[in-house]
Amino acid sequence: MSEADEHRLRVRYGETDQMGVAHHANYLLYMEDGRTRLMARLGCSYAELERRGWGLPVRKAEVRYRSPARYDEELVVRTRVSRLRAASVAFEYEIVRAEDGLLLATGSTELACVRLDSAERRPVHLPEEIRTLLTP
Amino acid sequence: MSEADEHRLRVRYGETDQMGVAHHANYLLYMEDGRTRLMARLGCSYAELERRGWGLPVRKAEVRYRSPARYDEELVVRTRVSRLRAASVAFEYEIVRAEDGLLLATGSTELACVRLDSAERRPVHLPEEIRTLLTP
Amino acid sequence: MSEADEHRLRVRYGETDQMGVAHHANYLLYMEDGRTRLMARLGCSYAELERRGWGLPVRKAEVRYRSPARYDEELVVRTRVSRLRAASVAFEYEIVRAEDGLLLATGSTELACVRLDSAERRPVHLPEEIRTLLTP
Amino acid sequence: MSEADEHRLRVRYGETDQMGVAHHANYLLYMEDGRTRLMARLGCSYAELERRGWGLPVRKAEVRYRSPARYDEELVVRTRVSRLRAASVAFEYEIVRAEDGLLLATGSTELACVRLDSAERRPVHLPEEIRTLLTP
Repeated sequence: MSEADEHRLRVRYGETDQMGVAHHANYLLYMEDGRTRLMARLGCSYAELERRGWGLPVRKAEVRYRSPARYDEELVVRTRVSRLRAASVAFEYEIVRAEDGLLLATGSTELACVRLDSAERRPVHLPEEIRTLLTP
Repeated sequence: MSEADEHRLRVRYGETDQMGVAHHANYLLYMEDGRTRLMARLGCSYAELERRGWGLPVRKAEVRYRSPARYDEELVVRTRVSRLRAASVAFEYEIVRAEDGLLLATGSTELACVRLDSAERRPVHLPEEIRTLLTP
Repeated sequence: MSEADEHRLRVRYGETDQMGVAHHANYLLYMEDGRTRLMARLGCSYAELERRGWGLPVRKAEVRYRSPARYDEELVVRTRVSRLRAASVAFEYEIVRAEDGLLLATGSTELACVRLDSAERRPVHLPEEIRTLLTP
Repeated sequence: MSEADEHRLRVRYGETDQMGVAHHANYLLYMEDGRTRLMARLGCSYAELERRGWGLPVRKAEVRYRSPARYDEELVVRTRVSRLRAASVAFEYEIVRAEDGLLLATGSTELACVRLDSAERRPVHLPEEIRTLLTP
């Protein structure tokens, strides 16, 4: 597997819930942030990909929450491409607390490749150039 | 001013913050919900408006928070058209707790009318049919 | 398995993303809504549970996205208790479009039982009364 | 007025809406981020303030949206203390696009000082030490 890309962020106040920790739905945003940064570093910016008419909608997401994140804590999101298929790509994530490296969560997402101008948005083959850039 | 439209919703767990109340940013979503329902009732569904190429982006928003809303409480959002200009429309909102009518927040938003297919999205005149339906 | 509880909601404008569909992170909020309503119907309101010092933090979440949901569409969230252990409970969800019953997503969450006044929030046995109410 | 503190962030995909721009409710989160960073720099971390039993709930918020922010754009949030009263503090914000300094939004929030252990959370005097640190 490829080396993981590291992205840092801080837990926002508005991301906490009344249990006093980052609400679990926000981890999907943290993972999306990690994916955005990894793709940019690999030379296939997702913003640019969409401008060229391709989209990568999430087809499956999974998160395991191991320890809570708290307001204003700095987190590190480590993102890797874990699998590349003809018409989909999967990513794996580890989220750790920056201060001491404590593992907070692990997760994975599977994304299909679609043409945004198609009404049905059926999966299509990833453009060859993107496949090459994403190859772990 | 026109009679207010009433929309009911419940505070989600994910909308609370670590102060144990609905986070203040969510009130803009509650007000947006109220606006969506009022427009639908007046016969100018906003989803339909966008399908026909018109958009109403928010240009100004204001909220005064008077009493906190809590998880699972039912809220009533009362929405009115407060002002209609050539190229914009303003709405006013009251959010009260359903159980006892306690006033939780008041707010207002001003929306410009734009053509979604224009790159600059400059304000344009509201379509006459929409003006008529929205007239307080 | 127990009969599913049905909860209805509408996709908010603020829940859409630039792909023109409900952003995938929001499905965790929809599933949380479904869980809140199911528990209330079974007589163990989660808000009440927390007031008595118990919490059910999410330990694992999984969602499969099958067809996109769009702004202002009405969705039905069907929620079931799928497994009950000594110190955890799991729920399963189906989210369908109300208009035609099209399956949009399926998902599951696993929640641990904790005492909110404990700093470590280690899993503890579910109170017997809650176990009984949640038994499928 | 004091010099503005600058905080940088990027627009997340999940923060866009189907108009293709950052949804207007997220600006309250961007402003909250700016406030969190300004307070930390002034030596009165808000996380620490809450640990000591004080809270600053938002009583009033206002935003004027001038130009849209887009996915993955870097934004600069400039935050200032604009007014300090016995039991409240107000902040002003400017949000600009990092790339070219284009003004995207201006806003303000007014926050009351409360004791978090009081059920009513009535406004109380700001602790003298905090007043001093926040003085523009």
